[in-house]
Amino acid sequence: MRTREECLRSDAADPLAHLRAQFALPEKVIYLDGNSLGARPLAAMARAQAVVAEEWGGDLVRSWNKAGWFDLPARLGNKLAPLVGAGADELVITDSTSINLFKALAAALHLQAQSAPSRKVILSERSNFPTDLYMAQGLTEWLGRGYRLRLVDSAEELPGALDEDTAVLMLTHVNYRSGYLHAMRVLNERAHQAGALTVWDLAHSVGALPVDLRGDGADFAIGCTYKYLNGGPGAPAFIWVAPRHADRFCQPLSGWWSHAAPFAMQAEFAPAAGIRRALCGTQPVVSLALVECGLDVFGLTDMAAIRHKSVDLTELFIALVEEHCARHALRLVTPRCPEARGSHVSFAHPAGYAIMRALIERGVIGDYREPEIMRFGFTPLYTRYVDVWDAVQILRDILDYKSYSGTAARDAVT
Amino acid sequence: MRTREECLRSDAADPLAHLRAQFALPEKVIYLDGNSLGARPLAAMARAQAVVAEEWGGDLVRSWNKAGWFDLPARLGNKLAPLVGAGADELVITDSTSINLFKALAAALHLQAQSAPSRKVILSERSNFPTDLYMAQGLTEWLGRGYRLRLVDSAEELPGALDEDTAVLMLTHVNYRSGYLHAMRVLNERAHQAGALTVWDLAHSVGALPVDLRGDGADFAIGCTYKYLNGGPGAPAFIWVAPRHADRFCQPLSGWWSHAAPFAMQAEFAPAAGIRRALCGTQPVVSLALVECGLDVFGLTDMAAIRHKSVDLTELFIALVEEHCARHALRLVTPRCPEARGSHVSFAHPAGYAIMRALIERGVIGDYREPEIMRFGFTPLYTRYVDVWDAVQILRDILDYKSYSGTAARDAVT
Repeated sequence: MRTREECLRSDAADPLAHLRAQFALPEKVIYLDGNSLGARPLAAMARAQAVVAEEWGGDLVRSWNKAGWFDLPARLGNKLAPLVGAGADELVITDSTSINLFKALAAALHLQAQSAPSRKVILSERSNFPTDLYMAQGLTEWLGRGYRLRLVDSAEELPGALDEDTAVLMLTHVNYRSGYLHAMRVLNERAHQAGALTVWDLAHSVGALPVDLRGDGADFAIGCTYKYLNGGPGAPAFIWVAPRHADRFCQPLSGWWSHAAPFAMQAEFAPAAGIRRALCGTQPVVSLALVECGLDVFGLTDMAAIRHKSVDLTELFIALVEEHCARHALRLVTPRCPEARGSHVSFAHPAGYAIMRALIERGVIGDYREPEIMRFGFTPLYTRYVDVWDAVQILRDILDYKSYSGTAARDAVT
Repeated sequence: MRTREECLRSDAADPLAHLRAQFALPEKVIYLDGNSLGARPLAAMARAQAVVAEEWGGDLVRSWNKAGWFDLPARLGNKLAPLVGAGADELVITDSTSINLFKALAAALHLQAQSAPSRKVILSERSNFPTDLYMAQGLTEWLGRGYRLRLVDSAEELPGALDEDTAVLMLTHVNYRSGYLHAMRVLNERAHQAGALTVWDLAHSVGALPVDLRGDGADFAIGCTYKYLNGGPGAPAFIWVAPRHADRFCQPLSGWWSHAAPFAMQAEFAPAAGIRRALCGTQPVVSLALVECGLDVFGLTDMAAIRHKSVDLTELFIALVEEHCARHALRLVTPRCPEARGSHVSFAHPAGYAIMRALIERGVIGDYREPEIMRFGFTPLYTRYVDVWDAVQILRDILDYKSYSGTAARDAVT
């Protein structure tokens, strides 16, 4: 696709093109930040009205049963499961990504403590998303007794760093900054050969590419629903436990929703059977209910088709940037090989922050990540080929005319 | 008030009567379960529309700054603070009640570990709300090293049970079942004299009666926003830390929202100053934003006026039940002295579950708690005196004509 017309033709031939109509997208915006906050499914407005007006306002407390609020974490979990290669009743939507990571890490350490108590290291990458590292730090520091987090500086070092002390290999499947996609199956195998368990953060892969947790032999996984799944701002996250660990899954955030009989009001904790023991307390129902609207769009297609278009979009973006912005000091941070990346592309530039501000002012919404990195997310459900073309032309304009300025105070952008 | 007409006259003279118009209440329903799920503020519908359509749908990821999503936990916390006697920047709204209790308990144990490491007991009541006990069990079992939960069978035993092993006194201010109201100031003093810290669960007191955390010398408090605060189903909870502990507040759920510089993307955790270090991960924005609609209604009155009417309503209910239902085997579980109870009244009856089902079918919504207990919540912002009268007549009818049946499967009712 070397012209705008070719991009338009690709859109006309795109089997996913009709899904864009499922979303409310503002005019005059090219939204390339669905990897941070997914766009709003059209259905979300009516769902919000129904939950707030009818379920909360009309049926009041009866909605816990009548509207199925109690079952939302498990029911929506089952709707999400096929997207990550999980089976029925293996996944719940609940709490935040950070909290779920804490549960998964704690459960993995607990399993190791039963069979291999000398394994006390959580192994990860220094480039992992910070909250993953912070949660692991918090957990290991509080456990004490030699538990610790060990970080390597590159993905290549991971296999060699798996040793007799490693309890858990904790990785984010697709790196939030570089877009690097780990080979999940290979790393699960390497970890298991070395006696370690794996905890995967799917924040930047769920809904962006096919994930096969069972098939690839993962042990635990968590992830968020507000990026590629379009669940709404800060929508509750998910946690998955491999069936082989389900009966021994044990985590310290054992609130009443994880109890075998929450309404028996017993003073002693007894864990629920299955994945419900990964729940904790009462969930934010309005935010949780909206997650379904995003999941329903995935029911209209499949992850193979999404991945196919995702690779097309990222390939096109890289090619066009390198062709049209060749004169400028842009450095591709994301792997050039599509098999090694997720659905966003990052370019580094010394003035990355200012350039991204200028792009946003021109209606091209990506985001910025320290240091120097401009991130562009491509979401096959609603990103068009022509959007990629137009975004690159605006980027080129900004670079050619240096129509960005200075080092304004840096806003927080997730 | 011995007649329906007297109740109507009390409503006509009620200085809070006009606040009922702030809520969407279904017709033909007498809602006496605001202690479980508060009614919907009228403003919540427009707010939900604005957050979903404009902020999420229209401004997309820019709303984290533009719509102030990042500041919601702290800004709404400041709006809630006066209701519990907290100062500015001492309280955040975030996560669930159970998760926040875990943070507060962990922080209290951490403080004790610095100065009195032999103190390893969390002291509480067996009748405390189960999730509080489960979270304390989860925390102490994971810490190991002698940490444990100790339960007493009655509130009278608490002062004597405070000893040199006690690290934390963990209590729910108003008991979820009996409605018993603890003397917070006295228990804080006793705990401190014994060298213990206090963690208060305000689930059944915040918004129901004046709470003075600072004035009464509490150390930590948590609570929920979906009961008397009318924040919406499962709306995020809150956590408060006494200013004297703020700088040493340390908890293991240290996600990126509790980092001093969340967007610097550092690999090492460094806690934020002040109460933001009680945050963890990204919050469910739609549910969180709706909390403000409930809080805004409290800005139209004050807790003294609310408590005054609350006592009136519970006194009236007890008097009318005992007069009109005197022939029946109802036993008042809630303290008879209004100074010793919150804003709900519980009566035990061997057929309590079936009677509550019959009440709900007749439009009087209370709830049932094992064993045998019918709970009736009185929410001065929208409960009328005549509602109390009418509810008691319906209860009397059901009892007199024994128009309830059997032991149908017990639904979950929060």
